[in-house]
Amino acid sequence: MEVTRTNFKDSLSTVYSAIEEADFLAIDGEFSGISDGPNVSALTNGLDTPEERYMKLKKHSMDFLLFQFGLCTFTYDQAESKYVIKTFNFYIFPKPFNRTSPDTKFICQSSSIDFLASQGFDFNKVFRHGIPYLNQEEEVQLREQYEERRSQSNGSGNPSYISPNSNKGPGSIPEEHREYIGRVVEKVESLFTTSEKTVDLEPCTGVIHAISKSVSYPDNLLSNCLVLICMLRCTILLDLLGAIPLGWDSTLSPLSPTQGKLVVGHNMLLDVMHTIHQFYCVLPEVQNTHHLYMNTVGFPSYDTAQEQLHEAGYDAFITGLCFISMANYLGTFLTPPRAHIPSQSKLIQPFVNKLFLMRIIDIPYLNISGPDLQPKRDHVLYVTFPKEWKTSDLYQLFSAFGNIQVSWIDDTSAFVSLSQTDQVQIAMNTSRYAESYRIQTYAEYVQGRQQVRESQGHSTQSWDEDGWVKPHYTSPSTVGAGPTGYSYGHNRYTPFTHTHRHTDTHTLRRARTHTHTLHSMDF
Amino acid sequence: MEVTRTNFKDSLSTVYSAIEEADFLAIDGEFSGISDGPNVSALTNGLDTPEERYMKLKKHSMDFLLFQFGLCTFTYDQAESKYVIKTFNFYIFPKPFNRTSPDTKFICQSSSIDFLASQGFDFNKVFRHGIPYLNQEEEVQLREQYEERRSQSNGSGNPSYISPNSNKGPGSIPEEHREYIGRVVEKVESLFTTSEKTVDLEPCTGVIHAISKSVSYPDNLLSNCLVLICMLRCTILLDLLGAIPLGWDSTLSPLSPTQGKLVVGHNMLLDVMHTIHQFYCVLPEVQNTHHLYMNTVGFPSYDTAQEQLHEAGYDAFITGLCFISMANYLGTFLTPPRAHIPSQSKLIQPFVNKLFLMRIIDIPYLNISGPDLQPKRDHVLYVTFPKEWKTSDLYQLFSAFGNIQVSWIDDTSAFVSLSQTDQVQIAMNTSRYAESYRIQTYAEYVQGRQQVRESQGHSTQSWDEDGWVKPHYTSPSTVGAGPTGYSYGHNRYTPFTHTHRHTDTHTLRRARTHTHTLHSMDF
Repeated sequence: MEVTRTNFKDSLSTVYSAIEEADFLAIDGEFSGISDGPNVSALTNGLDTPEERYMKLKKHSMDFLLFQFGLCTFTYDQAESKYVIKTFNFYIFPKPFNRTSPDTKFICQSSSIDFLASQGFDFNKVFRHGIPYLNQEEEVQLREQYEERRSQSNGSGNPSYISPNSNKGPGSIPEEHREYIGRVVEKVESLFTTSEKTVDLEPCTGVIHAISKSVSYPDNLLSNCLVLICMLRCTILLDLLGAIPLGWDSTLSPLSPTQGKLVVGHNMLLDVMHTIHQFYCVLPEVQNTHHLYMNTVGFPSYDTAQEQLHEAGYDAFITGLCFISMANYLGTFLTPPRAHIPSQSKLIQPFVNKLFLMRIIDIPYLNISGPDLQPKRDHVLYVTFPKEWKTSDLYQLFSAFGNIQVSWIDDTSAFVSLSQTDQVQIAMNTSRYAESYRIQTYAEYVQGRQQVRESQGHSTQSWDEDGWVKPHYTSPSTVGAGPTGYSYGHNRYTPFTHTHRHTDTHTLRRARTHTHTLHSMDF
Repeated sequence: MEVTRTNFKDSLSTVYSAIEEADFLAIDGEFSGISDGPNVSALTNGLDTPEERYMKLKKHSMDFLLFQFGLCTFTYDQAESKYVIKTFNFYIFPKPFNRTSPDTKFICQSSSIDFLASQGFDFNKVFRHGIPYLNQEEEVQLREQYEERRSQSNGSGNPSYISPNSNKGPGSIPEEHREYIGRVVEKVESLFTTSEKTVDLEPCTGVIHAISKSVSYPDNLLSNCLVLICMLRCTILLDLLGAIPLGWDSTLSPLSPTQGKLVVGHNMLLDVMHTIHQFYCVLPEVQNTHHLYMNTVGFPSYDTAQEQLHEAGYDAFITGLCFISMANYLGTFLTPPRAHIPSQSKLIQPFVNKLFLMRIIDIPYLNISGPDLQPKRDHVLYVTFPKEWKTSDLYQLFSAFGNIQVSWIDDTSAFVSLSQTDQVQIAMNTSRYAESYRIQTYAEYVQGRQQVRESQGHSTQSWDEDGWVKPHYTSPSTVGAGPTGYSYGHNRYTPFTHTHRHTDTHTLRRARTHTHTLHSMDF
């Protein structure tokens, strides 16, 4: 089903029902681009930490537009032993409401646009009929403008109750409405404390604030609403376009349907980040997404997508099919084997809340409900060198050490993974008198970065005002021994075999000079 | 006629012929946005100097994409006493050629996209079938990659003749081709020194460099090639996509057809800047476009466009019609009156090389073939104040002085134009003891800015390397008395009546406090 601004309001109850009856949901997004950095390789160093990857995506990927949001609901029919599937394609576009409403700018990356165009993606549908939306802050601003204009047209000299700091959130709820909103909040909260599945809300102006700010969400709820964040924020603008004061359709229960549902995606980190960034609020500065506790499963990228129709809803559908196959595959290990593994099964639990990290050698996922994996990297060297060096120079330098893996950081530095950890000390000794390059162990490198970070005060920053929990930054070198009780810190994973796409670029950009060879037999 | 990458090469000779036979050309561009600044008002202060306006557009408008280029050729048929019109719509998109070719990022502004969408603009045609192009620098880079890969596949250890600095331009012409290219340059230059209208060129790899770098253009030629800059750069990529070594269709004479033709546009400054920026090279840092000597006529914006099909070719067509009407209107002042004024008429000359400056109170155009107008602004005050102030605070402050015009600069400063110059001294005296605001005369303001600029070394910058002439920066306060012989400096123009669109925004953003009144009767 295609959902545009033409049929959005009429489709909402269908969408909500589909979500409510579903056993699990699959989502997928189509974006106007991936990276505004120099190239994708800058985004995907094979030895990124989950935090570094998150920060790179936040820095280089959030100015693109999520313009198609795919949702596929999967409901298991016990009698028929098959899944009933409903697919929705939401076309999204931040159509400005008027001259003073937010005029969003977004970046397009030619390669992404060209790829989608070659797949027959309908840009006209996005730009002509896309569903408009607001994030929290934009909504508050638009609401203020309305109120100011209304108070002016009422002949009142003072803007009624808008305080100068009203875009800070709850402060903008008018005094005279607070009691009413308190009652709404109470009703909404009853969804979590009672067995009620719906709540009747009277039409009101303040309920959005109540929903987005004042409700004390259970830990696992806000996060479950990923799909609804998108849909709700779209509804808000449509309401603003409609009538003031705003009213919710009181027969809908906008919060309940996704609660506790499994949401699956492929390469889902970007989808999650874009959904929050575009429809909800600014992403936090450091990777403290742990408190989101989203029920999500990440698994490696679906690679045949390029040969098929690249549409968000279709991709979500395929993703769901993959998930079903993988879940049922787990059932083959049971005694006796089970043909159908439901999405609520405990067999799925180890994969829940793990977001796949593309192209990281030894950390397969970002864990959003616990500490991240801390693989040993004591076979890794941090090498700095003149900007003329190419990958081949590094291969030559380490030619005596057998197979190595090079992960470029920038023009003058790279990680070099040796195949044997005991070669590290030899390499360190050899490099002591080198003039053109410098080698550090990975531990030394991490320590150096940590010192820089602390001197910049990063570890003390807090985003409490934005509603994000204060990050508990833990240095990679201390997590394993820390008080958290997790023992992920010192597992060693076998590096994946991996081809670095950026090698070509670097080869082309570097002159063929300055080669050095490090011979282990020198020692 | 619609020109996409599907029919581009086949259409070229038709386009060239149309240009060649034309008496004058009209052009127009459609862009993915106008301003990436906070709002349009930041781009259009009513008291901008031409240089300031140019710099603002360069800073805030060049990251958008020109994705439709309209060309309309007008050829006067003496026998029929009417113009023959040919319209072309070029769809443009920087489709990347491969993974290592430039992957252009461009910004879209929702309001612009929404406007074009509402006019039925076909984005799918742009993104699926747009003509690819390269600017000079991108072309050099792509060529290098080709050569490097070719030399690698030839088994050669060294990249043949690519020097490390080869993206600096002519340096990348291989030694063994220089003699050949010299002959090509000579042939091309003969176009300007002889009566030849075409030149036969053998297929060659280096001719692009010859055309873009080595030819000694007569002053008025490069500039006449605005339309062809666009078309040639598009052809180049199509050639790169086709075969290596590249070949020009030797029956074409790519430089001659626009020579000496009048090119007209509406609000043409942005069109010209985008065309040069996107298809040719980086715009210079300061307004030293004078050396371009483009034969262009600017006249005020075509305001009924919003009610009609917004397509670049159509807009160019309407622009041409307006020009014909205006030219013929000039003919009614002759004795005896003449019904048809040709585009080469001397009556048109005073309007040639003038680019309309939108929303500047007293400088109607940017003069690209001479010094700009320097209207007296001795009735203008530069006022700084707390950021809470609104337009109404300024009206109240100057309420004793009758009608004023307020031109916002930023949150804490604005120009205030008084209706009487002799009020300036009174206002200055009054403000002497003011604490919350400060007033300077316009002359004092200009002098202050000039000092800041000189301390930053702006006046000594040179862009010789890019092929731009070194700017001769002249301070506004000295031009009139300078050695140039121009006497534009001290004309006083009656300000246009003008509504500032940004007033609303400022009103909404400011609290209603801190009002002061300046009474002239106090003195």
